This record gives sequence, structure tokens and C-alpha cells, in this order.
Amino acid sequence: MFKIKNLFFLTVFIVGCDPSSNSQKKDIDLTGISSYDYTLDKTTQKLLEKQVDDVLNPKNLDKWMKHMSSKPHHGGSPWSKQNAEYATNLFESWGFEAYIDTFRVLLPYPKIRKLDLISPKRVSLKLQEPPVKGDESTFIKKDLLPPYNAFSADGNVTAELVFVNYGIPADYVELERMGIDVKGKIVLAKYGGSWRGIKPKVAYEKGAIGCIMYSDPKDDGYFQGDVYPEGPYRNEFGVQRGSVLDMPLYPGDPLTPGYGSRGEVDRLTIEEAPTIMKIPVLPISYSDALPLLESLGGPIAPSSWRGGLPLTYHIGPGPAKVNLQLEFDWQLRTVYNPVGKLTGSKYPDEWIMRGNHHDGWAASAADPISGMVSLMEEARGIGTLLKTGWRPKRTLLYAGWDIEEPGLLGSTEWVEYYKKDIQDKMVVYINTDGTGVGFLGVGGSHALEKLVNEVSSEVMDPIHNVSLQERNRARLRTSNNPDSERSDLRIYPLGAGSDYTAFVHHAGISSLNLGFGGESGGGAYHSLYDTYDHYKRFSDGDFTYGITLAKVNSRLVLRLSESEILPYRFINMADNIKTFIDSNKKLAKKVKEETIRRNNLLDKKAFTIAKNPKIQYSPPKRLSEMKDFDFSSLDRSYNKLVDAAISFEKAIERSKIDNISQTDLVEINRLIREVEGALTHEKGLPRRPWYKNMIYAPGFYTGYGVKTLPGISEGLEERKWDEVNLYILEVSKAIERASNKIKKAALLIG
Amino acid sequence: MFKIKNLFFLTVFIVGCDPSSNSQKKDIDLTGISSYDYTLDKTTQKLLEKQVDDVLNPKNLDKWMKHMSSKPHHGGSPWSKQNAEYATNLFESWGFEAYIDTFRVLLPYPKIRKLDLISPKRVSLKLQEPPVKGDESTFIKKDLLPPYNAFSADGNVTAELVFVNYGIPADYVELERMGIDVKGKIVLAKYGGSWRGIKPKVAYEKGAIGCIMYSDPKDDGYFQGDVYPEGPYRNEFGVQRGSVLDMPLYPGDPLTPGYGSRGEVDRLTIEEAPTIMKIPVLPISYSDALPLLESLGGPIAPSSWRGGLPLTYHIGPGPAKVNLQLEFDWQLRTVYNPVGKLTGSKYPDEWIMRGNHHDGWAASAADPISGMVSLMEEARGIGTLLKTGWRPKRTLLYAGWDIEEPGLLGSTEWVEYYKKDIQDKMVVYINTDGTGVGFLGVGGSHALEKLVNEVSSEVMDPIHNVSLQERNRARLRTSNNPDSERSDLRIYPLGAGSDYTAFVHHAGISSLNLGFGGESGGGAYHSLYDTYDHYKRFSDGDFTYGITLAKVNSRLVLRLSESEILPYRFINMADNIKTFIDSNKKLAKKVKEETIRRNNLLDKKAFTIAKNPKIQYSPPKRLSEMKDFDFSSLDRSYNKLVDAAISFEKAIERSKIDNISQTDLVEINRLIREVEGALTHEKGLPRRPWYKNMIYAPGFYTGYGVKTLPGISEGLEERKWDEVNLYILEVSKAIERASNKIKKAALLIG
Repeated sequence: MFKIKNLFFLTVFIVGCDPSSNSQKKDIDLTGISSYDYTLDKTTQKLLEKQVDDVLNPKNLDKWMKHMSSKPHHGGSPWSKQNAEYATNLFESWGFEAYIDTFRVLLPYPKIRKLDLISPKRVSLKLQEPPVKGDESTFIKKDLLPPYNAFSADGNVTAELVFVNYGIPADYVELERMGIDVKGKIVLAKYGGSWRGIKPKVAYEKGAIGCIMYSDPKDDGYFQGDVYPEGPYRNEFGVQRGSVLDMPLYPGDPLTPGYGSRGEVDRLTIEEAPTIMKIPVLPISYSDALPLLESLGGPIAPSSWRGGLPLTYHIGPGPAKVNLQLEFDWQLRTVYNPVGKLTGSKYPDEWIMRGNHHDGWAASAADPISGMVSLMEEARGIGTLLKTGWRPKRTLLYAGWDIEEPGLLGSTEWVEYYKKDIQDKMVVYINTDGTGVGFLGVGGSHALEKLVNEVSSEVMDPIHNVSLQERNRARLRTSNNPDSERSDLRIYPLGAGSDYTAFVHHAGISSLNLGFGGESGGGAYHSLYDTYDHYKRFSDGDFTYGITLAKVNSRLVLRLSESEILPYRFINMADNIKTFIDSNKKLAKKVKEETIRRNNLLDKKAFTIAKNPKIQYSPPKRLSEMKDFDFSSLDRSYNKLVDAAISFEKAIERSKIDNISQTDLVEINRLIREVEGALTHEKGLPRRPWYKNMIYAPGFYTGYGVKTLPGISEGLEERKWDEVNLYILEVSKAIERASNKIKKAALLIG
Repeated sequence: MFKIKNLFFLTVFIVGCDPSSNSQKKDIDLTGISSYDYTLDKTTQKLLEKQVDDVLNPKNLDKWMKHMSSKPHHGGSPWSKQNAEYATNLFESWGFEAYIDTFRVLLPYPKIRKLDLISPKRVSLKLQEPPVKGDESTFIKKDLLPPYNAFSADGNVTAELVFVNYGIPADYVELERMGIDVKGKIVLAKYGGSWRGIKPKVAYEKGAIGCIMYSDPKDDGYFQGDVYPEGPYRNEFGVQRGSVLDMPLYPGDPLTPGYGSRGEVDRLTIEEAPTIMKIPVLPISYSDALPLLESLGGPIAPSSWRGGLPLTYHIGPGPAKVNLQLEFDWQLRTVYNPVGKLTGSKYPDEWIMRGNHHDGWAASAADPISGMVSLMEEARGIGTLLKTGWRPKRTLLYAGWDIEEPGLLGSTEWVEYYKKDIQDKMVVYINTDGTGVGFLGVGGSHALEKLVNEVSSEVMDPIHNVSLQERNRARLRTSNNPDSERSDLRIYPLGAGSDYTAFVHHAGISSLNLGFGGESGGGAYHSLYDTYDHYKRFSDGDFTYGITLAKVNSRLVLRLSESEILPYRFINMADNIKTFIDSNKKLAKKVKEETIRRNNLLDKKAFTIAKNPKIQYSPPKRLSEMKDFDFSSLDRSYNKLVDAAISFEKAIERSKIDNISQTDLVEINRLIREVEGALTHEKGLPRRPWYKNMIYAPGFYTGYGVKTLPGISEGLEERKWDEVNLYILEVSKAIERASNKIKKAALLIG
């Protein structure tokens, strides 16, 4: 499900400097000791890692991808079950204890999909993706689901159409200034600008009765490059399928929020489930969008709304009028999560988990099979170590998640079901998803930033004669990113969009998400055309980056499993949290400045006087008054965190591992792995208690996109001043809880 | 010729603050006395102005536009001559001494225009603009010239095509990094990004043998809005005609640089004339560009190069191959400049001149007739004052310039021919050109900035119940322009693009350029569709803004003609020159930082490491070393200018006009009007001695776009460090010469 593009958008995330907060900043040395030097036998470790490297073979990835993406394998399909069994059998053949973890979840399939333009002319839209000559898997009809949005409502609605740009809240502010209301209308939104589920959610909140989404060729089509099959980009028939489950509220089975849907559990009714969309939603291609847009009248869309179709983009409402008819089967279906397990020899109750989903929308080679086969080869590589008698110190779990695409159901139910065990035992969850070629993108818990950098500075890019870290650094340099000279390159904070979500945001488990991208050439995303042939021709066709990803992840797994003291570095965590605090202070300043500026302009009637009399466009609304917020508790907690992190660093530096008792080691590692959990709060975020992490969350109105210190930042954006004040305190407390864990660990280390 | 769009781009020109130079800045009070309070009988003046206002009648503008744009009236056409005679007769009927000033200039018409795609498929391009139902004047074939570029070379060339984006120097830097050479090729450039003549000039410098220019629908077509006749924007057949004479070298008759082409003058041969393009150049529509772009292969164009046609923009070279055949008649033709004159009663040898060109490309209603009819109504209004026995104190000249479109020939020859007289007698030249609806845009000599603001704060917007100044201020406020609270709104410095060019840049005469725009809805520019009907439907259809422009200009003219001491304010001039000095310092800093940054990145091989291996893209070139420049002479001269301006201000404030002798008054006004001339240097700018103004010029590689302190800024951009040093001194001297004139005037005032 994860869209590689977004990943790279996030890696260049720059936190602006707030000179006013400089006084608070302590100088932090990121160039200290390595994350495992003193707690690991380096020679043995290097040997282990080399042994894995030596057996990795791109031909396996090729063979497995060809097999697994040879048929449609959406969640609930026969081939998805087959793939789960295939992976399980392979795990077993490599020496893992292997099994399939199953759940029973709501997963509707489409029964009726109809969309007709009925006025000013009649056009029945095709809503189909034709096969492409030369790409066999596009010809398979059996078990293929047509383009649809998972968890759309049933409906048969007829109304005038309104073009709403990306359909995000800011677009409705513009529409309101233009005097356009979507109440009782059907909205037509471009894909992009946010996670897709935001569009129908906001449309519904605004009173729309239906939502159509299309991929505009400007964002995702011929404007970007040659289209399939000539090139990799989306052709005129390609449709982006995808979930519209309200995952920013909670992901997973909509009928079992917060608990695993196994066996006899209480289920909400469909009507009760708050994450199921309340209006019918359908994705279409740009060739189907063309007659709709051509038939719109009304004002001309603002310049930034216009796309790449050869027409003047109008907003409506009407005269275009459409009938949208959707019906789904609303069945419970089975999740098949294959799991391979190697029980730890020394710390069996400390778990290192790897995961990648295996379900897709059609043949779905890039997303997710490219990542799945890399995970499998990594597991095979580690499996070969077993033949030498080696066993991991900690328990390793390799999972293939099912039914991720419709809303992270496989992983979420698993986390919810095993939550107690997970919170007790899991050290880290490392996620991959579809992967391509280009640059290593890494997001996750910042205590792992140093470890990630150590690995990325050792693993070589398969094409360029430099390390992965050095290549990323070169890109930051050429784009003038001020972080380019930071000794450890930053990892981005996690939003949502793949299976780490329940781990990091719900269970409070340190997580990572990794993949290659930036040079793959997109455009098949969630369409019929995401095939083995497409991947071979335009992405990592020789699987060298897939192998490189296995090298990176096997190192992460082995260093995490073999270090006597877990290789976490809290200096990095503190430094990143500082940027989150600063960006929230900056946001508060910006919101205040905008409040003053706008109200001042309204006092001066500037909008009215400057307005083009030919165009209907009201002045923006007067903004509610805003006081300054007191961020001092945050600053204090940050200072405590820095102190704790420095104590931890010094303790590691001066102590000898042999001097620490086994009991203490176990306790130290427990404290370390509880740091992420300490950042969570049982009550969760405003209006979405499932999201418990105080440091990051997917945006309530952005979807995948991350918000840092979300209780504060979303309070500022939505002008809920009480929430801002409350969450300044909650975040401060969370940081203090984490600091206390770190401090305790440091004391035990010595 | 003047493109209204650009005008508004310039008005929001913001000069960044350079904190390092703050120490040099003196506080300047712009809120001092008005520009004429003490030198003019205010009551009489207001009465005069009201008398003019009261007779202004939009119906006249309508009638005259309908007549003058009823037939094609390009320079040299029968209707252009007729329009000249029409205006002359009207001037005469309003009490002016009226005559036609003629010159004989080179003005080629197209004989053969052929453009065929010959590979990979054969397409003969249409190169025609079909008539539009409901718009009669588009049906007239007689005397209509087809789309062409004036002063293109003859040629019959066949070569592969290369898409060069806007065809400006920066685009060739990109092409070189992509490994693409245009030598021996024909380039296809989008209109926009610079004045059109830059494109073939640079193409020729790079070795191309032909140049095709087209209006991309993204910039100028359906992307912008509904196309003609449904809306005002350029339809698929509309072609932008226009000159490609190398006007940044010198405008006017290419065969008589620097002197008027009247009677028996030496003429260069066509081969000798450096401003005539050396390669064939042809403008085409976007429907004709479509098959060319569709047939290009090679790399995909960078994102910012791509336009609004429904295809993937490739660069080539080839496989598209075209044959371009152009032949022109290279005739001498006659310029007809109608002039209406009212000789001054008190200061006959002090001239106030107004001008607007009257030639077009086809029916050409907006450009230039909209401005010409406003000028005519203004002249008529002032003419009515004569019936009361009133005569202007100074001499007024109202001109309609001919053959402006092909390269400012009518006005340039006039200035060159009368240069001695002009430099001796002319106070100011006030230009208009095509005008529309929206905001008053004013460019010109900054000593007139206060006068302009006084007028714009008194004349009301015809739709909004506020002054023109207040409306402009509201727009600056809503766009966060820091200049919005400046007591006088800035006027922009003049580049080129209309008939003020020879006055301000060659003869050193204070000039202004005024027009309304920003809400007109463009898209007929230089096409068959710039008609009376188009103007009536989409621009100033009731001519209320045309009347408002006449109110503004009649005030400017009457205050300039009646003030005993010319209403110049040098505080405003100093303040603007300060922004030019600051922006040049900032540019020097930026060039230096970019030099260090790039060479540093090259040292670190960052470009090579970050490069996408699938794409050919070389690192940028290493930049030559750059030392810091010594701007202290500029700072010193600026300080002298401020001192002089303050002395002048104080002198005006304390002295009584009656105490100044008539001889002194004449001398004071001579000194005042010589200030602009003092800013010129006989040797002119590097490689273009015709341009003598040291403060501003059209950019050598931007065309219309202004460069301030061009000797310095273009030296920095082209890394000619010696020129930078030389022109820092020349500009300093020019500012000192001006300061001396102002100081002397102040002393004489008392």
C-alpha cells in the first residue's frame, strides 16, 4: 500500500530554525560511540553478516516475484491464500518454525459499479482497464477485482458534479470563498495532495452524497513521463484502487476496533463502524474523467487546481450531472498471515520482528511483492546461518501480512490480538513494503537512527561505488538540505500507510520502515499494470536493490538480535524531538501571525478592494483570537531527555559489558525497549484514542502524512486552543516518562 | 506591443533587504510636501482638471476604436496610414497644430511561409488563424498579414527538431547537462520566460539554423481559461506575431542605428544590420505545435519545461525533422507618426510629450487602439480648455507612433532624428499602449513617483469606491508585499517593450508608462483575435478604465505643464536607487555563494553520486573564482544623492515661488529635467552603446524585462568581473552627476 513517492518526500523534510528557541538548545554530539561497539563481538558479527550477504541471490527474488504476482492476489483471493502458504512453506524449508496466523475480518468486494454522465450529454463511463499487449498478466480475468475503493458505502446517487481539486480541507475553504457548496452534490477530486481516504471523508462532512476520484495526468500520467506500456507511467485507462477506510481514526477490521478479530468476538454492525465511509466512492481513470470535466461549467478553477487534461478546468456545480451506483457484498473473509519464527537462544522473550504485506490489488508485483521477496531472501539468508549451529540470541519473527491494502487489517488484528505479549516482549518492528530503485528511505523511531546510519554507511549502493548513506548525503547536498552534513542522516517520523502503523502508534513499539525509491518511475500504483513485466522493465529488474535491501535489513535484525545491550541511541531521539518541538513553536507563531495579518487585512477591507469584480470571491473568514502558548514544560522535558540521553551515552562509554549482571542486562534492555511505549498515552489523541503515540501520528486530515506532536499541531491547525494547552502537558509528560526509563537504564549500565 | 501581463509582474517587484547595507541607509521621509503645492495655483489647477474630467466621454473611445480597428492596420498598411490621418485630423479639430512626421524604414513583409514536419511522418502545418463566427473583423482577408515574426531572416532549412523550453540561456545550460547540442538543428521554443526575440538570438548563438516559437496552452491557452470565442483566452489556432529584432542591442530601423531615417541617410545593408535575426524564425499555434511535439523522442523534458498539451514532452533531437521555409520582401516603408502640438504660452521650449502607438498586427483593438483612443480623448479634453482662452504654460505634444510592433521604429527614429532638440527641451515623455481593466500599473523615472502617487490617490477607480492608489495598495497588502505601507507606492523601473524606450534609455528623458491591467483576461495578444468584439466582451467594454486612464494622464500632463517648478521629487528617486544598489549587492552575494556552493559540491562529487543512472545528466560546470566587489563608491554617491534630494526638498519647502526670478526658474527647471540625462553615459552599456542610461535597461538576455544598474548586474550574471568593477564606478559617477544637478537646483531655489 505504501506509495514510494511519499517516502522520499518525507526524507527531505527540513525543520526550520527558530532563532528564539536557540537558547533552549543544548549542543548534542551525534558522533559518539557506535551503537553496538561495546556490547557485541564485532568480529563474529561481521562474519555473520558476511555469511548472509554471500548467499543472497537476486534470482530467487525474480523467481518468487514471478510466481507470487502471476495471478490476482488481493486479500481473500485464492492466490493470496496460496502465497501465504508458499511463504510459510519456504520459511519452514529454511529452518524456521512456520505457521499461518488467521483472523476473520469484514472485507467487502464490489458487486455493482456504474457511473454515468447523464447531463448535459449521456456518457456511460468504462471503469475498466484493458489488457496491454506484451504483458500477459494483464489478460487474466479470473479472480480479478475491478477498480474500486475498499470500504466505500453502497449507494445509488444522482446529482450535479463539483470539481474540488484534491478535496482536502483547504480546497473547501476556497470553494466557500467562491460561494460554492457541495451539499447534495457529487464531488470529483483529483488523487494526490493527501491520502485518498481524506477526500470522501471531508466531502461527506461537507454534505456531498458521492465522491469520484481520478488520477490527473499532470500528477500521475503522461505529464510525468511516457505511459505504459511505452513507459512506466499511468496510461489513460489506469485506475488507482485503494482503501478509503478512515484509518486516521483507526485501521484494521472496522468491526473490531482495538481487539483482534479472531474466534467469537463482539463485532460492531456495519452501520456502527465509524471508519466505513458513509457515501459511495469510486476511483476512475483520466480518460473517464475527461467527459466529466469537459461538461462542468461555473467558475474556472484556481491555477493550482488545474491538471494536465486538454481543457479549461471548471468547478461547476453542473451542468454535468452524474449517476453513481455502487454495491458491495459486505462479507467476512479470512486473513492469512504467514509467520516464520526463530526462537532466541539467550533472550527468547525479546522479539525482533520483520514484516511485509503480501496481498495486492491485482497482479501487484511492485506493491507489495517486491518488498516481500526481499524479506523472504533475507529470511533465507539468516536461515543458512542455522546450518552452522548458530541461533539468534533474541527471537526473530518474519511475517507476511495479509489484507493490508484494504486498511492494514492483517497486521492490525495481529497487533491487537497479541498486544499484551507484544508490549511485553517486542523490541522492534521493521517494516518493508513495495520497493524500487534509487535511494534508501528510512523512517521510524529515532532511537534507532544511529543504528540505521551505521548500517547504511556500510552497505554499498549496487550501482554507484559509494555507501547508501553517502548517496543519500549527496542528494541532500545537491538539494541544499542543511541536514546534509549531520553525522547521522535523519530518518523521517512515521505517519501511516503500511503495517508499522499498529506497532508504533497503537502498541508503542519502536519501528522502522525501509525501502528504495526515487528512481523507479511510478505510474502503475494500485492498477492492473503493476505487473512483473512492468517491474522488470522499469524498476529493479535485476533485483540488485532488492538484494541490497535484504543486506540492510539482515544487518539491522542481526545487530538488534545479537547486541547484549540493545543498540539504541537516545541522543538522536532527543535531537529529533527538538526539531518537532521547534516546528510546533514555529507553527504556533505562524498561526498567530496569520491571525493578526488576516484580521488586519479584513479591518482594512483589503480583500474587498483588491477583488476582481468579474469573479465571485468572498474575503476569508475572520479568525478567532489566539493567545501565546506556554511551551516551557516542553522545553523542560526536552532538557531532561537530553540529560538522560547523555547519561546513557556516558554509561555505555565507560562501562564494560562483562561487569553487568545478566539480570541487570535483561532489565536494561526492558527499559530500553519500553522507551517508545513511555511516549504513548493510554487515552490517545483527541477524538481518536486508538492512536496512543504522543510524538507522531498520521494526520487526521492528511492521512498517510505524519504530524509530529500531533496533539499540539492539530490543535493549532484546527484552532482548538484547549487541546494545544492540554497536549503540551501530555507530550511533556510522555517525554519525561521516556527520560526516566533512559536514566534508569543508564544507572543500571553503570 | 506592450504585454499587459508583464507590467503587473513588475509592479510587485520586491527588493530584498540586505542587513549588511543598513548602516549606509539614511532615513528618508517620503511623506513630505506635495510635488506642486508651492509652485502652482491649486484652485486653478483643480478647476482645469475638473473641466477636462467633465468632458471625457467613453462613447468617443468606443467609436474611435471601432473605426481604427475595423481593418488590419499593421505598419505600412493602408489602414495604418488612414489611422494616422484620422488622428491628425482629430487633433486639428480639437485645436492642436497637427501634422504627420514621416520616416522611411526597413520593414519586410512575409512572402513565403512554409513549415512541414517531414519525419517520422509528414504533416504540413496550417500556419493560419481561421475566422471566428460572430466576430466580423476576423473575416477580413484584405491587407491582412499572416502570422510571422518581423525581422526574421530568409531561409530554407531542414533539420531535426529540439524542444528548448523557453529557449533562454538557462535552458541551454540544462540542455548541455543533458548532453544535447542544437548545432545544425531547428529549435522549438515555447513563448514566455523572456521577450520573444531572445529565443532565436540565443538559438543562433548556440548554432541552431532555425527557430519555431509557439504559445503553449499552459501559459497562453485553455489552461488559463476558456478560449476565444467562448472566453478571452488563446484558442488552438491563435498565433502570437511579434518582432524578433534584436532590440536589446538597439531598437528602431535596423539600417540606421542612432540616427533618424529621414531623407538621404546612410543605411547599413541588410547583411550589416546587427539587429536583424540571422536565422529564420516562425511563430505557430499550439495546434500546429502538437504534431511536432508528438514526434519528438529523446529524453523527457524537465518538469518545469512541460506544458499543457496532452502528451509527454520530449526534447529530441528528432526523430521529428522539419523543413522551414521563409522569405520576406525586405522593402523600405513609410512611418506615419501623427503629432498634435499645443505650443506653451510661458515655456514654449519645455516639452511635455504623450505618445501611444497606433499600428497593430491585424485588427489589433486592445493592442494598441485601446490606449490610443484614451490618449485621443485626453487630447480632446485638454483641447476643450482652449475654448476658454487657456493655453498650457509648456508645450504639449501628443503623438501616435507608427511601426512600433516591428521594433519601435516610429518612436525611435523620431527620437534619434530630433535628439538634440529633445535633450534640450523635453521635460518628460509619458507613454501608454494597450490598456485594459483592473489595476493602474505605472513604470518610469522615480523622480516622478510622488507626482504619480498624488494623481493616483485623487483619481477614483471606476468600479470600486476607492482611489486607484488605494486599490493598488489593497492588492499589495493581500499579497504580503512589504511596500504596501510605503506612503508613495513604488513605480517600477522601465525595461523595454514600448515607445518610451528611445526616450528614457537613449536620450535620457524622464519617462513614464501607464496602463490598466490584471483583470482583462488575455489571450488575443498579437493574434487575429485581438478585435473590437473581443475587447468589448472581455476587457474594458464600456471604456470606463480608458476614461480613467485619460483622467490620470491629463492630470500628469497638466501638473507638469503648469507647475512653475517641475513637480519632481528626488527623495523618491534616491529611495528607489537604494533598492537597486541593495539588490545588486545581494546579487553579488548570491553569485558568490552559488560559486562556492557549486564548486564545493563538485569537489565532493555530490552531483555524480546523486545522479539517476538511467538519465544522462552531467554535473554543472565549475565556476570561475570571484572576489568581493567594492561597492563603497556607490554607497558614497548614494549618500550624496540623498543629501542633494533633502536640500532640494528643504529649499522647496522654505522658498516662495514669487521670490525666484524668471531666469532662475528657467535654469532650475533645466537642471531638474537634466537629472535623468545626467544618469546616462555617452559610451552606454557594454556591447550596446545605444543604451546610455546607467540606472536601468532591458536585459540583454531577457528583452523587455528590466535590469537595474545593468552594467553591474549583467556583469555579475555573465561573470565579467572587470565590467562589474568598471560599472560600479560609472554608476557612481552618474549618480553624482545627478546629485550635482539637484544640488544646484536646490541652491537656486533658495
